[in-house]
Amino acid sequence: MEKDCVFCKIIEGEIPSHRVYEDENVLAFLDAKPVSKGHTLVIPKTHVENIHEAEGMSYMWDAIVEVADAVKEAFDANGINIDQNNGEVAGQEVFHLHFHVTPRYDGNEIELDYDRSDLTDGEETAEKIEMEI
Amino acid sequence: MEKDCVFCKIIEGEIPSHRVYEDENVLAFLDAKPVSKGHTLVIPKTHVENIHEAEGMSYMWDAIVEVADAVKEAFDANGINIDQNNGEVAGQEVFHLHFHVTPRYDGNEIELDYDRSDLTDGEETAEKIEMEI
Repeated sequence: MEKDCVFCKIIEGEIPSHRVYEDENVLAFLDAKPVSKGHTLVIPKTHVENIHEAEGMSYMWDAIVEVADAVKEAFDANGINIDQNNGEVAGQEVFHLHFHVTPRYDGNEIELDYDRSDLTDGEETAEKIEMEI
Repeated sequence: MEKDCVFCKIIEGEIPSHRVYEDENVLAFLDAKPVSKGHTLVIPKTHVENIHEAEGMSYMWDAIVEVADAVKEAFDANGINIDQNNGEVAGQEVFHLHFHVTPRYDGNEIELDYDRSDLTDGEETAEKIEMEI
């Protein structure tokens, strides 16, 4: 429990939420500002800020799969996006690790208008990443 | 190995790629159309189409964490997005489960211009999802 963390307060029940799944380690609840019908957040009960502090939390995996299945079934969604943002520059707003499970419907497609370029410096780029692993 | 699957062919080495991480179950390699410097894909070696077929594949978790750490370190990124798309309507293009690990840099922020509304039917929505879990 981290003082001043909104999601920790949701876990503790100090702030209300609409829970859809809970186990010993994980809580899932509806996003209060949904992008689409059924938009759900999946979080660990242990406070960590982001993915870089999440080694060993693989118990999150099957909870995410389960919630994704349930959201899809509940509203007959045509697709699901799973997104997790780290850092303000990546769009993170609450600094407690969370996965967005966002259903998509025909006529409500996600906008993927990123600029994508061809990979031209792959060898050098891959080497730099490999050196950090 | 799924016939005609581009990512299965990358795993087998039939299609070249820039690998950054590999273990018994997981492969990570550079996206051929990067959104930003260091954009990497993390995939299971077992062919599954999407998250709905991925129960029990929690070995993916620590590989994703490790790759996210390495990409951030390699290029001193300011943030990281982790995204996984299921279904055409959600932007999925290759139908072999894959996680995008996309570094973000100051001046290259992600555009999150989704329409978000306030949650007004939370109780009913949560109940419908819970019924599927």
